[in-house]
Amino acid sequence: MSETLRRLAELIESRKLINGGDPEKSYVARLFAKGDDAILKKIGEEATETVMAAKDARVDGDKTHVLYECADLWFHSMIMLAQFDLTPQDVLNELARREGLSGIEEKANRKLIDREQQEARDAQDGPAA
Amino acid sequence: MSETLRRLAELIESRKLINGGDPEKSYVARLFAKGDDAILKKIGEEATETVMAAKDARVDGDKTHVLYECADLWFHSMIMLAQFDLTPQDVLNELARREGLSGIEEKANRKLIDREQQEARDAQDGPAA
Amino acid sequence: MSETLRRLAELIESRKLINGGDPEKSYVARLFAKGDDAILKKIGEEATETVMAAKDARVDGDKTHVLYECADLWFHSMIMLAQFDLTPQDVLNELARREGLSGIEEKANRKLIDREQQEARDAQDGPAA
Amino acid sequence: MSETLRRLAELIESRKLINGGDPEKSYVARLFAKGDDAILKKIGEEATETVMAAKDARVDGDKTHVLYECADLWFHSMIMLAQFDLTPQDVLNELARREGLSGIEEKANRKLIDREQQEARDAQDGPAA
Repeated sequence: MSETLRRLAELIESRKLINGGDPEKSYVARLFAKGDDAILKKIGEEATETVMAAKDARVDGDKTHVLYECADLWFHSMIMLAQFDLTPQDVLNELARREGLSGIEEKANRKLIDREQQEARDAQDGPAA
Repeated sequence: MSETLRRLAELIESRKLINGGDPEKSYVARLFAKGDDAILKKIGEEATETVMAAKDARVDGDKTHVLYECADLWFHSMIMLAQFDLTPQDVLNELARREGLSGIEEKANRKLIDREQQEARDAQDGPAA
Repeated sequence: MSETLRRLAELIESRKLINGGDPEKSYVARLFAKGDDAILKKIGEEATETVMAAKDARVDGDKTHVLYECADLWFHSMIMLAQFDLTPQDVLNELARREGLSGIEEKANRKLIDREQQEARDAQDGPAA
Repeated sequence: MSETLRRLAELIESRKLINGGDPEKSYVARLFAKGDDAILKKIGEEATETVMAAKDARVDGDKTHVLYECADLWFHSMIMLAQFDLTPQDVLNELARREGLSGIEEKANRKLIDREQQEARDAQDGPAA
């Protein structure tokens, strides 16, 4: 695994209350203290901020914020993973398992095929509701 | 229009800085003072909270939070509309225009048909990426 | 309630499978047939599309898509409400209950005060995690 | 960098139309062909699905879907990064830069301090809007 992801995962893990994390001193420990909903809400927030940063980047040509918000999104994803006793390595394994990309695309394409089959009859009935 | 939506839209309008809204005293005025991104971020947040509340309601049987979060979502949508000099009446007109629901579904179904046609070739090519 | 919202809620209600809604013919009936997750996923999607449309509107000056996406967001919110046997009138009642806006702002400000008090000690501990 | 992330980034890069990616055969190439909005919409979708999966995991005890949806979120984040000619290494560098976590928390805490200062006057004005 990436050394950065490994170190970051370790640090996040150390901020769990059970590992001595102190909500008075640590942002991550405070999220752990608040629990699932506070962490999940951050996933939604950071995704929205990533989308807005990408939109802005097309206008002002500055990609710094896209990078920054994507880092925030991954960072808070890692807090969520830790909250469920999962690790970035688990995510990397899942990505590798679907590999090599063809596998991921296979999965995505199969989803599309499923969806298409579900929608086909709907569509052929035409515009009437 | 609904009397509640009309009154609410008026109040929101009155909180614009140009109309004397005071960010020191009013939450809405403060959002207007912060601008587009702060308002749009709230749309993403409230949508996420609505989804979480709906998930919770299936577990604890309490629909109060679904209602509460949906009200928050609509409320912040109205702040966004005002930020773009649009009104809830404009949204209602758009909904009525697509009517009667068959119209809306027609639109939705047409979207599905379009998407299906885009995906059809993809899907038939099978799992290979 | 707004006549449009009332009619729309009635139409949505009529698309429930229990009321004879036909997933083969109706987009709304198909969402009901798919269940909670399909409906909730649409809330997240439409919120993201609303944010993107608002970003675009600042660039191209065209507010049509903001209106259109907001209508989609409200429309799918209403499907979610129906899925939980709630109505737009319930949402309007909740909005009116908090009124008049000062009430809503009171709620929002109280949230801010709560959050601020939670964060105050965190913040004063400074940058160390 | 993680070998998996590196390989995945390479594969995604190879799916760009300019690199010979074929929208007829590849899901990723098709997203590139559709452009920014299609990719950004996926960020919002996958974030919502991650939140729903996490909620479900607390009920049914099955964390598989949390992992799966988080992998989808990271995968589509990487497509977005590629769309902006950024790489996962750039994200890892940004995460490392803020390190060691204390740095990230410093940033997060500074955000909180800023927000707190913005909100302090609002809050002390009390419930009146």
